[in-house]
Amino acid sequence: MKALIVSADHFEDTELLVPYYRLKEEGFKVEVASVSRRRIIGKHGYEVEVDKALRDVNPDDYDLLVLPGGKAPAALRKEPAALEIAKDFFRKNKPVAAICHGPQILTTAGVLTGRHATCYPSVADELKESGALYEDSEVVVDGNLVTSRQPADLPVFMQEMLRMARKSAK
Amino acid sequence: MKALIVSADHFEDTELLVPYYRLKEEGFKVEVASVSRRRIIGKHGYEVEVDKALRDVNPDDYDLLVLPGGKAPAALRKEPAALEIAKDFFRKNKPVAAICHGPQILTTAGVLTGRHATCYPSVADELKESGALYEDSEVVVDGNLVTSRQPADLPVFMQEMLRMARKSAK
Repeated sequence: MKALIVSADHFEDTELLVPYYRLKEEGFKVEVASVSRRRIIGKHGYEVEVDKALRDVNPDDYDLLVLPGGKAPAALRKEPAALEIAKDFFRKNKPVAAICHGPQILTTAGVLTGRHATCYPSVADELKESGALYEDSEVVVDGNLVTSRQPADLPVFMQEMLRMARKSAK
Repeated sequence: MKALIVSADHFEDTELLVPYYRLKEEGFKVEVASVSRRRIIGKHGYEVEVDKALRDVNPDDYDLLVLPGGKAPAALRKEPAALEIAKDFFRKNKPVAAICHGPQILTTAGVLTGRHATCYPSVADELKESGALYEDSEVVVDGNLVTSRQPADLPVFMQEMLRMARKSAK
């Protein structure tokens, strides 16, 4: 199983690093993609190596897409390659897990219409405007999509992300 | 199952937060103990609520002891209550998981004599002097003790910590 984390500078450190370590614990190969191959730095100063530039990503190589929050998604939604990766996962009904500001990438990609989802409270209006069915819950699962609100939701976010990835692998 | 994380200001943020969230994901009740009930702040600025002052901890209430690294262990080893908690876990052969500088608490508690263990490289000499059998491995398991070196080891550290906690619970 192979997971792709799409992020950029100013990511929310735990929302990237907790899934990163947890997926490795579970035996996943985990790769990080960003705007370029340059190492990215989180809001709290953690540095993360980047395996691939977004334009070099072939979504077919991955079984799971993870979108952490922080200020990274606001930058990533301006990157056509990031939006294309998200659209590809939705088109093929493959697992996508987004937390906090991560769903911003999905609203811009236009894939949330009619989908149950959650996000960081300040992103809720934007989510609704994009046609999503917003819920203020620690985790929301709808088809191929798992969303959560904030770092405190990471335990259930990981539970549902892994459940979906395992189911999808069968 | 109930886990106790013993830490203090200047903890290595991921070494506390990754086990914190992972153990919750696994269904553990997780409590944090420190010098006082005041909230503690990590090297990277994450703030963590403290459930109990060290002197109010009854080790019998917990199935697992976790000792994250950072600069916290250097302060904690001066706290007799922290050393007593560690000694109690060893006396009763209950699972103890320490990473990075975390084992410093165990060297001062005098519980590592003849035990296979690892730690952050700069702590290795001190570990050997305390009578431990130092190994430079991502994870070392010896009896009730799981140790790792650094944040990059968190995936295997969590694997072995959970394996030991499950085994111990049977």
